[in-house]
Amino acid sequence: MLLSPGPVPVPDFIMQAICAPVIHHRGPVFETLMEGLRRDLQYLFQGESAATCLMMGSGTVGVEAAMYSLFQPADRVLIVNYGKFSERWVDFGKLMGLDVIPIQTAWGQSPSAASVLETAARYPDLSGVILTHCETSTGAMIDVEEIAFALKQTRPELLLLVDGVSSIGALPFYFDEWNIDCAVVASQKALMNPAGTVAFALSAYAQSRLRPTHPSDARNLHNYLRLAQQNSFPYTPPVQLFYGWQAALAHFRRRSLPEIWNQCHQSARAFRTRLEGLGGALLAPVPADSLSAFSFPQQDHEAIRKNLHEQHGIFLAGAQGALKGKILRISHMGAANAAVMEQVGDLLHEMMERQKR
Amino acid sequence: MLLSPGPVPVPDFIMQAICAPVIHHRGPVFETLMEGLRRDLQYLFQGESAATCLMMGSGTVGVEAAMYSLFQPADRVLIVNYGKFSERWVDFGKLMGLDVIPIQTAWGQSPSAASVLETAARYPDLSGVILTHCETSTGAMIDVEEIAFALKQTRPELLLLVDGVSSIGALPFYFDEWNIDCAVVASQKALMNPAGTVAFALSAYAQSRLRPTHPSDARNLHNYLRLAQQNSFPYTPPVQLFYGWQAALAHFRRRSLPEIWNQCHQSARAFRTRLEGLGGALLAPVPADSLSAFSFPQQDHEAIRKNLHEQHGIFLAGAQGALKGKILRISHMGAANAAVMEQVGDLLHEMMERQKR
Repeated sequence: MLLSPGPVPVPDFIMQAICAPVIHHRGPVFETLMEGLRRDLQYLFQGESAATCLMMGSGTVGVEAAMYSLFQPADRVLIVNYGKFSERWVDFGKLMGLDVIPIQTAWGQSPSAASVLETAARYPDLSGVILTHCETSTGAMIDVEEIAFALKQTRPELLLLVDGVSSIGALPFYFDEWNIDCAVVASQKALMNPAGTVAFALSAYAQSRLRPTHPSDARNLHNYLRLAQQNSFPYTPPVQLFYGWQAALAHFRRRSLPEIWNQCHQSARAFRTRLEGLGGALLAPVPADSLSAFSFPQQDHEAIRKNLHEQHGIFLAGAQGALKGKILRISHMGAANAAVMEQVGDLLHEMMERQKR
Repeated sequence: MLLSPGPVPVPDFIMQAICAPVIHHRGPVFETLMEGLRRDLQYLFQGESAATCLMMGSGTVGVEAAMYSLFQPADRVLIVNYGKFSERWVDFGKLMGLDVIPIQTAWGQSPSAASVLETAARYPDLSGVILTHCETSTGAMIDVEEIAFALKQTRPELLLLVDGVSSIGALPFYFDEWNIDCAVVASQKALMNPAGTVAFALSAYAQSRLRPTHPSDARNLHNYLRLAQQNSFPYTPPVQLFYGWQAALAHFRRRSLPEIWNQCHQSARAFRTRLEGLGGALLAPVPADSLSAFSFPQQDHEAIRKNLHEQHGIFLAGAQGALKGKILRISHMGAANAAVMEQVGDLLHEMMERQKR
């Protein structure tokens, strides 16, 4: 069982949807699919006012496309940097010539809403803010609601871009209520789909700020949004993967988003209760419910990971960079529910007991 | 039955491969998959000397990524322009600041090897040549072998980029023997896979000419190739789609490429024999075996298309631009074999007979 915080196992009902007969992408069947997807994505983002679209690529490709589409060289942009992925947006921002104001914390920590708001207040000429809602590399999260609400109330000209790659569909997220301008989510996390596609929501303001475009610019959201409004797509679309989104989003609607979010929450709670009982600790003081990054004192984490994988067929993710070997990461998304967490807790318990003997 | 020249129906054995359990993409299982894919792609391209890789995107995204990676603004590049897709490369070349020398023919016609070679001879400072092997919008093809062989023998400094989106895997193609520098193929044509991925082969010379890169440049082949050599991928890879490539390429190896090419050829021959018998005509004087673009005198082609679709569940593609309503296009790839062409021939025959009465 794959319990990495993305990719997550794809349930049978989604695989079956993906295996539907191939259709041609110019015609009424595809148009109906796209129209439904746009509405279902509005539900996922909780953005009735948002324009939504899909593109081919990973979460990284998606967030970079959003940055490229919304900002221009020399724009001053505040970017939280509290792990491997949010650090990428800082690097990419510099690469595309943005005047990046990073808000940096140690990996595992979360920048507080107050620190983000204070820094933003020092830069009256800020063009935008990029917030990674959940940092998949550390399991930490930031309070997007508080930051967004406070910022946009006084400074509506700020473009607020949220990397929701591993948060949207797993954690409460309200595009409209929180005044978000652009949000990105990837297929292989809470959506339980194969990797390869990303979805976007854009406010009317974000749409008005999109970089002028040319038909042949695969990184510019302008084309995707313009054609999505016509229930079309600028390239040959990955229709089979879109069927997977359709199935996942129908499932979300059927169960309701609050129930899906609650399942992640219950999974996280079950795991963390067991973890505490075993003397382990979470890395993040402000943890997201999408995943847990955790450690045990005086343990060889790679050995635990190897044992779980080889003896029990359970795959947890390790960590990168300075955290390598020091933590393990477990998903709470999709099939990784509370019951599965109890099983993993039992196995970890057994391993600890065996070591004591 | 979908008989458009891409996307084509995905056979069951490929769908089943795609439905394999999700794996994590950092680890030995993925590395083994990538290593095998690189070798199988060398076979597909007939490029033992080539470095191969995959990326997410459509054929258009792939060809544009290759152009972006291999050429710099102000480079003088000769581009054949004989249909909707090759015209795109002219447009994109201008967008990226290339000094484009187009070789234009009417849609349906093919630039002769002699005309390409003569034009190339007039520009001693040419950086490269972009050849669309098969123009999917018209069914026409060009003699890549003759052009490439003649050009590279006297001017090895020329970068030869081949758009093989709808030719590689359907028509004889020999990357090494023909001295190609970069070739691109898409998943949803001869490879019988869902849309969403493209594959590349690059010569050592093309690799040496790649644009210097930064880790965060989703359009630069440099990253994909560098990581492919390590059996890795620069982003979360679309592993399920890679399984589909693996299945298709294993099938190609088992049956052998010449036999796969011959199946397309037999399909094209069967259809064209029937077409002639019915008084129809091919659009292209130099047709590719990947598809046939055809017409009947004094016929309403959209009515034929609609009848085939609604009465018989057979989907043919129409045409775009100035050809709209004037031709139909039928695939000879994958399941669209000679037996299927006989069935379509029978249906067209019946339709013609019914009209006469």
